[in-house]
Amino acid sequence: MTDNKNKATERNVPKPTLFRLPSYLDYLRRKKDEGSSHISTTKIGEDLKLYHVQVRKDLAHIGAVGKPKTGYEIDSLIEKLVAFLEYESVTNAVLVGAGQLGKTLLGFDGFSEYGLNIAAAFDTNKEIIGSSVKGTPVMSVEELPQICEKLNASIGIITVPPAYAQETADVMVKSGIKAIWNFSTVHLVLPDDIIVQNENMAASLAVLRNRLSAQK
Amino acid sequence: MTDNKNKATERNVPKPTLFRLPSYLDYLRRKKDEGSSHISTTKIGEDLKLYHVQVRKDLAHIGAVGKPKTGYEIDSLIEKLVAFLEYESVTNAVLVGAGQLGKTLLGFDGFSEYGLNIAAAFDTNKEIIGSSVKGTPVMSVEELPQICEKLNASIGIITVPPAYAQETADVMVKSGIKAIWNFSTVHLVLPDDIIVQNENMAASLAVLRNRLSAQK
Repeated sequence: MTDNKNKATERNVPKPTLFRLPSYLDYLRRKKDEGSSHISTTKIGEDLKLYHVQVRKDLAHIGAVGKPKTGYEIDSLIEKLVAFLEYESVTNAVLVGAGQLGKTLLGFDGFSEYGLNIAAAFDTNKEIIGSSVKGTPVMSVEELPQICEKLNASIGIITVPPAYAQETADVMVKSGIKAIWNFSTVHLVLPDDIIVQNENMAASLAVLRNRLSAQK
Repeated sequence: MTDNKNKATERNVPKPTLFRLPSYLDYLRRKKDEGSSHISTTKIGEDLKLYHVQVRKDLAHIGAVGKPKTGYEIDSLIEKLVAFLEYESVTNAVLVGAGQLGKTLLGFDGFSEYGLNIAAAFDTNKEIIGSSVKGTPVMSVEELPQICEKLNASIGIITVPPAYAQETADVMVKSGIKAIWNFSTVHLVLPDDIIVQNENMAASLAVLRNRLSAQK
């Protein structure tokens, strides 16, 4: 029988579960601050508006099992979540496209809480190559392959204009990047083993504004 | 028969369609730059990896109909998309939570291209109330109701720590905000007529890192 308690990262946890994990962590830290030491899936479910059986299944994915009557120990849950989400290990990322959005992300100190380190930025604009944005050096895209290897970077962040998104993704894949965080509006075409997450703020805005107009 | 060509905003267009519209606009602008004047749904589908019938349906939602042989006029499509996405009309938004993430969003000039104007920011931290972040004044959350009314703000952006997300949303709703752009990890509980879009970067990172670990 597999020792789930020692296995910090289970393979291919369903996306909906992964999406909920940061919320559980925030919630449990708050309960701990309030003085709680134990909690039940019923209570978590009530407060987060989730079905308690779903909560139990989600927590089982990270190796957490509750005890009858006492429930789950909050410190242990927090520890398992932090370990599972890898917040205390550092993943190196590279960012391509040091324009408005890229600089904005480079300036966001919050990523370090999640163990994400944007170690280098790249651009084609000669005027900013060689400069630094919030301490992160901006290099020429031509240096991407060797820098990715040197940094052992696994995540590539795309913040280039739409016209350059696909070729940027292609260069990243050739450079050994395995996971792409795509902030462009372009639907990237990539090999099957490359992981992609899309962050499309233009799309979110389109939904917000259309639904607002529909109400008028 | 309804005159769809004059109706810039159709009620409740499906979310997947809305999500694709910014991509169509970027793509068509590129094709125009390359010198094209007309385009077919087949071509759009090939380039964007979409089923051409889906493209035709999406464009029908914004009142665009192609002609046999010539297809769609690109300028007209661009015009209809810009009108539908309301990029040339301004929507006022307020932002609550002028911390790291909030300041980052306030500093993103790109929003103005989408017609989004973050007109005011709010916080509870007395040390930053009264200051300005990139030209946007930071006010006390207590002033939110009257400022929302004065600005006719329809969108509320939530960038507060998780512990305060729900109460922030409640105050926004009471202040007349109809659409919430939620950057927190909290699942907000809101009246049915309030529109919500969630932008959960912590969740995206969780997926990227889990899938990376699953590959090892």
